[in-house]
Amino acid sequence: MIAPTHADVLEANARIRPHCRITPVLTSTTLDELAGCDLHLKCELFQKTGSFKYRGATNAVQKLAGDVAARGVVTHSSGNHAQALALAAKVRGIAAHVVMPYTAAQVKKDAVLGYGGCVIECEPTLAARAAAAAELVQRTGGTLIPPFDHADVIAGQGTAAVELLAQVPNLDAIIVPVGGGGMIAGYCLAVQGLAPRVRLIGAEPELASDAAESLATGVRQQQKPPASIADGLLTSLGDIPWPIIQRYVAAIHTVSEAEILHAMRLVWERVKLLIEPSAAVGVAVALQRRFLGQLVGVVLCGGNVNLNSLSW
Amino acid sequence: MIAPTHADVLEANARIRPHCRITPVLTSTTLDELAGCDLHLKCELFQKTGSFKYRGATNAVQKLAGDVAARGVVTHSSGNHAQALALAAKVRGIAAHVVMPYTAAQVKKDAVLGYGGCVIECEPTLAARAAAAAELVQRTGGTLIPPFDHADVIAGQGTAAVELLAQVPNLDAIIVPVGGGGMIAGYCLAVQGLAPRVRLIGAEPELASDAAESLATGVRQQQKPPASIADGLLTSLGDIPWPIIQRYVAAIHTVSEAEILHAMRLVWERVKLLIEPSAAVGVAVALQRRFLGQLVGVVLCGGNVNLNSLSW
Repeated sequence: MIAPTHADVLEANARIRPHCRITPVLTSTTLDELAGCDLHLKCELFQKTGSFKYRGATNAVQKLAGDVAARGVVTHSSGNHAQALALAAKVRGIAAHVVMPYTAAQVKKDAVLGYGGCVIECEPTLAARAAAAAELVQRTGGTLIPPFDHADVIAGQGTAAVELLAQVPNLDAIIVPVGGGGMIAGYCLAVQGLAPRVRLIGAEPELASDAAESLATGVRQQQKPPASIADGLLTSLGDIPWPIIQRYVAAIHTVSEAEILHAMRLVWERVKLLIEPSAAVGVAVALQRRFLGQLVGVVLCGGNVNLNSLSW
Repeated sequence: MIAPTHADVLEANARIRPHCRITPVLTSTTLDELAGCDLHLKCELFQKTGSFKYRGATNAVQKLAGDVAARGVVTHSSGNHAQALALAAKVRGIAAHVVMPYTAAQVKKDAVLGYGGCVIECEPTLAARAAAAAELVQRTGGTLIPPFDHADVIAGQGTAAVELLAQVPNLDAIIVPVGGGGMIAGYCLAVQGLAPRVRLIGAEPELASDAAESLATGVRQQQKPPASIADGLLTSLGDIPWPIIQRYVAAIHTVSEAEILHAMRLVWERVKLLIEPSAAVGVAVALQRRFLGQLVGVVLCGGNVNLNSLSW
């Protein structure tokens, strides 16, 4: 297990630059009034494949040596990482094999297929997914690129923070949604080397609050059974992100399902950004008015929503 | 009837600058592939009050002499102009009286009230609306600011084109949705003075194609009965916009209701921008692949959608 460093984030930033978008930062008078502070929305929903995950996937895929890359990449994910890895592999001209439970929504399989990836279905258990991925690695000789517990993926996610610090100088804090912890760990590494006075704030659903409880108790907690609408934040903290988070994150705040839905609808209606529930979790923390008068970055991590299953 | 000029647009641009946002221009690899050209999306949905209308309303309101302004402004509209005028008046510190048919959706009345405007209800006919507005002007001494048939409003709408030409040099064409014609007339005036080689292209629903038919026949046609989902484009061309459009617009293309819905959903799902149907009309014209290999601006004119009445 290799922990990434600040230097790895800067290297990743140079490596991904030809492939990833510099995502814009937007503001909203309405949100600012409601939150009582100046919010700067880092629009990762505009990143290719619709989420920040494309940064980490691109960094990991582009970093592979030519002969290793030629054998392709493998992952198991039914979320944004699957799409991101599929496109990152396509751009490198190599194969991507993505293991998904056969219960995953067709729209998610279609997204991976649309970016040129291969979908391999398995039983809907973590053990079956891991076994199927291991078998694929064995068979193809491909490289496993997990969604967050990987140094190159974490370093790649941190590149958004490098951009944000340049786009908005003098931030007091950055609010980052926390699932497996890859994104916030990458932000920690970026910020520590570039602007260590900026506080990193985690945002979690109350129904998936393992990171908040881990930070509060000092002992890494397991995630509860998945129950939150914020489907990108249901995993447990990874081995690599955890010590980085424990060292650098100032606080992790939790929000209710009602707060998430309210924040999501508010951003759709008033800011006109089609964010996914996981992105609304960070906005919901800002709306708790914990940052009065401050300059705060909020990471809108993705915009992948199934419009056929809206809950209002 | 006073026709606005290019100089009026430049004056408006200076006048509105302290009050209006410079809206960003975004791009989408997916849209470009589908349209076969480089699209630059002018995000007027991020303008205050959620549409370009705030530019024209602000120019008209800010231009009023102090003693005239003190008596307030009046309009009849149930659309984006109503909200825009309400906020523009609030910013100037004066009253806005907005006549709406009592059949208008409560969410539209609430939007005007939310920006501090007064809503006056009337029978749902054009005659009743005009009479109620005239009565208000009489009673309050306020100034009537119509939604598009007004030189200051048209000049204000043109300021978005001034921004766009600076944000994206070397555009071949700009696609602008056409309702009453105030926006495209403002764009014509801006472009003629700054970059006359840029072609102005109108976009209309087939079910509300009075401008396309007017341009084709050389005689201004009346609008058909309202039937399109693009509820911002259902009015007839105004007296002031018509000769400007006739002189400067290169072509007006029409799209079906199915094309509008397809374009709207595509932009929501793939570009993550919550555009309203009227904005999708311009995208739908681009998707007809009429601009292969060109550099094309598309005006996403607004993002005011009632999420409770989505049609999918």
